[in-house]
Amino acid sequence: MLIKSQVKYIQSLSQKKFRDDENAFVAEGPKIINELLAAANVETLSLYALKSWIDNNAEIIKSLQANQVIEMKENELERISFLQTPNHVLGVFKKPFFGKPSFEKKITILLDGIQDPGNLGTMIRTADWFGIENIICSKDSADIFNPKVVQSTMGSISRIQVLYEDLKTFIDDHANIPVYATALNGKNLFEMNPIEEGFILIGNESKGVHEELLALTKEKITIPKIGNAESLNAAVAAGIVMAWMRRSL
Amino acid sequence: MLIKSQVKYIQSLSQKKFRDDENAFVAEGPKIINELLAAANVETLSLYALKSWIDNNAEIIKSLQANQVIEMKENELERISFLQTPNHVLGVFKKPFFGKPSFEKKITILLDGIQDPGNLGTMIRTADWFGIENIICSKDSADIFNPKVVQSTMGSISRIQVLYEDLKTFIDDHANIPVYATALNGKNLFEMNPIEEGFILIGNESKGVHEELLALTKEKITIPKIGNAESLNAAVAAGIVMAWMRRSL
Repeated sequence: MLIKSQVKYIQSLSQKKFRDDENAFVAEGPKIINELLAAANVETLSLYALKSWIDNNAEIIKSLQANQVIEMKENELERISFLQTPNHVLGVFKKPFFGKPSFEKKITILLDGIQDPGNLGTMIRTADWFGIENIICSKDSADIFNPKVVQSTMGSISRIQVLYEDLKTFIDDHANIPVYATALNGKNLFEMNPIEEGFILIGNESKGVHEELLALTKEKITIPKIGNAESLNAAVAAGIVMAWMRRSL
Repeated sequence: MLIKSQVKYIQSLSQKKFRDDENAFVAEGPKIINELLAAANVETLSLYALKSWIDNNAEIIKSLQANQVIEMKENELERISFLQTPNHVLGVFKKPFFGKPSFEKKITILLDGIQDPGNLGTMIRTADWFGIENIICSKDSADIFNPKVVQSTMGSISRIQVLYEDLKTFIDDHANIPVYATALNGKNLFEMNPIEEGFILIGNESKGVHEELLALTKEKITIPKIGNAESLNAAVAAGIVMAWMRRSL
C-alpha cells in the first residue's frame, strides 16, 4: 500500500535540492538495487517492490526492518517510478559514503560541464571498469544523483567517488599532478604512453574544455579523426581516452 | 500552417512499417538537417520550420520547391516533433542512397542485436569518425531510421551504409574476411595489432554475441577490466575497439 506522503517524498527526490537536503537518492531495477544493497558504503532507506521481487530476494533484504520494504502492485510502482517502464523495485538510499580521496599515483577524471545525464552515468561506469576511483565534476555539471544518471551508472555509483569542485581551483591546489585535456589540435592520443598518475580533463559535449583550464594542462590530446563525423559522443570519447591511458595496467 | 494529413503522415513515420513503405524518415534540429540538406545521397521531401530558421537558411533551401518548406509556429512544431523540446526545424527525407558496398581491405562493423536506439546511433557516429564505411546489423537490431537513432547519429546517417542481414549467412558469404568478436575471455584487446581488413562483431547489450556466430570468428577479443563495473556500455565498448583497431591509420 502506497501512502500519499511516500509518493510525494519520492517525487521530491527528482529535484537536486531535495536530494541534497535529504542526502538521499532513488535507484530502480533489480540489477542496480542488488548492487546497492550489497555495497558497504550505501545505507538503504526504503524499498518499494513487487511481491515477486520481495519473495525472490528474501535473503538479501532480511537485515532491513519490515517497514523499510513496502510491497506494491504494478500500478502503484508506476505512480512512483521515474522510468518509462517500472522495473520490479525502486529503492531510496542515502548517498554513498567515501573517505578522503587521494590523487597521487592514480588517474582521476575531471569533467568540465557534462550536461547529459546518460553521458555522465556512462562515464562513471567506464571509469569503474578501468579502475579509476575518482571523478571531479565542475559545479555546472549534471548531478550524479539525478535518476537518469543513477540508472546509466549500472551500480558503479557506489564505487566511484564523485566530487563537485571549481576545476581551476582544484587543479591549482594539486599542481603536482599533470593534467591531460581532450582538445582539438592536441597531440595524437595514439602517440601517448600510458600514464600512472594524472588528471584527464574531458570537456562539455558541445563546447569542449574551458580555455582557462586548457591553459593549465601539461598536454592537450586529440583522438585522431579518419572519417567525416563532426565529433564523437562525449562518453565514447572519454572511454577511448581512459582505455588508451590505462592500457598497460 | 499545418494540415491534418501532414501531422498524420509525420506521426506515421515513427513506425518502421511506414518508414519502409514510404522509404522515408524524419530528422530534427538545425545541425542534422543542414548535414542532410548538404548530402548528395539524400533527397529532401519536406521541411517544417520556424520562420527564423527559414530566414537564416534561405540560401541553403533555395533549390527546394516553395511547397516543400512549411513555415510553422512553435506550437505547431511541438505537435509534430518527436523531441521533448522541438528544435527549430523538422525534415522528412528519403532514405540515403548508397552504391553496392565492398568489404575487402577495410573494416566493417557487424552488430548482433543492438536494441538501444541511442547506442546504435552513437555507434554509427563513431564508425563515421574512424572512417568505417559500412555497418551490418542483424535483423533483430533496432532500426536506424527510428527517430531516436537518427538523432544520435548527428548526421552520420547519410555517410555510413547500414544493411540488415542474417549475420551467419553474411559471414559465410564472405568467408575470406576475418571476423573479430567482442567476447568474455577473449584475447586482450590491447595486445591486438591494428587491422586493415576485417569484420568487428559487437554483441547485444546484455547477451553479447550469439554462440553460433562466435564459432565463426578468427579471434575473440576482450577489453580488459581493471576495476569493478560488471560491464561497459555497448557504444563505449564498440568505440574503444574501433579506436584500437584503427589506431595506426
